[in-house]
Amino acid sequence: VTPLPIRFVLLETSHPGNIGAVARAMKNMALADLVLVKPLRFPDPEATARASGADDVLARARVVDTLAEALEGCSLVFATTARERDSWYRVVDARSAARRIVTEARPRPGAQGPAPAVAVLFGTERTGLTNEQLMSAHALLRIPANPAYESLNLGMAVQLIAYEIFVARAETEAAPPAARDVPLASPADMERLFAHLQEVMEEADFRDRTQSGTHLMQRIRRFLNRAELDGNEVNILRGILTAVQNRRRVAGGTRG
Amino acid sequence: VTPLPIRFVLLETSHPGNIGAVARAMKNMALADLVLVKPLRFPDPEATARASGADDVLARARVVDTLAEALEGCSLVFATTARERDSWYRVVDARSAARRIVTEARPRPGAQGPAPAVAVLFGTERTGLTNEQLMSAHALLRIPANPAYESLNLGMAVQLIAYEIFVARAETEAAPPAARDVPLASPADMERLFAHLQEVMEEADFRDRTQSGTHLMQRIRRFLNRAELDGNEVNILRGILTAVQNRRRVAGGTRG
Repeated sequence: VTPLPIRFVLLETSHPGNIGAVARAMKNMALADLVLVKPLRFPDPEATARASGADDVLARARVVDTLAEALEGCSLVFATTARERDSWYRVVDARSAARRIVTEARPRPGAQGPAPAVAVLFGTERTGLTNEQLMSAHALLRIPANPAYESLNLGMAVQLIAYEIFVARAETEAAPPAARDVPLASPADMERLFAHLQEVMEEADFRDRTQSGTHLMQRIRRFLNRAELDGNEVNILRGILTAVQNRRRVAGGTRG
Repeated sequence: VTPLPIRFVLLETSHPGNIGAVARAMKNMALADLVLVKPLRFPDPEATARASGADDVLARARVVDTLAEALEGCSLVFATTARERDSWYRVVDARSAARRIVTEARPRPGAQGPAPAVAVLFGTERTGLTNEQLMSAHALLRIPANPAYESLNLGMAVQLIAYEIFVARAETEAAPPAARDVPLASPADMERLFAHLQEVMEEADFRDRTQSGTHLMQRIRRFLNRAELDGNEVNILRGILTAVQNRRRVAGGTRG
């Protein structure tokens, strides 16, 4: 089975044993792209011991300092969560998310070069992902579990999602891949869009009475991420922002 | 969630840590009936440590000497296997097996006393179930996995099957609709948003070289609809548009 471009990103993992268990769980389900953002201890003999036979996945795991680096070359981003509902993000159960991930990651007929990766984010063992980290995600992925005892071990969560991806892949291999004409905007494109929008808001002296500037930008980020914009759509929005700025600058210039 | 009468039977488990992980995995998915046939070491501090919060499942686990004792009071029995095909047994994938298990374990209307338990058997970490042990099963349960690296950790296998049972159970029970804190923006609100955006684009003299105005607005409508905006989010966008307009009008007014 050729691995699909599906990247699992572990953020600030505390226990190296868990990283080993994750490598094994991924390999069991034919996944190989593991990125570690600031792991507490890695490499570590405990990770190697728990990987048992998945040392190749462990050896190729990349260690980076920021989530942004981890998401380089990615398109769709899911963040794992224990929340059943969320006011800001779409919450998708693991099974539906897996189908979406596979559809997105499969090679498109006639496409040049490798497809951008789909990323799944996993937070720390104790506290999961921070609100800031969630801000990079298009949607949240939730594993259904016992409401009275939901705290899944990190390795188990990875195993379940990897399994759903494996099953979804088997299901869709018969069917042709869905065509997407234009790839999703990259996380870096989205960052530039948010920065541009903020600039325009500042130039227009836009203030929201009900919330602070940071809070407002966060809300905007969330709902624009939810839209899963492709590259052209980001360009349209950037074009509108530039047009608005030029107009104002011309007007201002003439005035002065 | 009331646990259904579904029993997980571990045969001659070598590592007590795995027994703890199994208890946790079961509790995560609302299962509680664990039976251990001749475990190498149990009870054991390693089991307790790995159970983390599922000590109740561990405390109630029964230790017995034979598979026959473990299966007392059971009806349907599945044996876990890595085989894809088998000459003797029906091999059922984890998902289909879970549906069957739940159907079998649910209380029947008008039935007297507790329903007999459905059992799932798990062999030793190294060699799985013996042919003799398989002989007690009605069918084999197989977890789909990477053919190049199928050896699932015992805890992971339990987690996957417990999860499939949990999902199958949820599927068969009617779910109430999800609550939403802030209602979705109405279609009329969305229309006003689109009209406002178009106005600003015209005032800014925004043109897209690649597509006609109608086509462009259609694209924008599609991706904003995809975001499933609520009323507050539409208000934020309208506020930004108004701020941009006021600024430009003031600038234009001074100029004229």
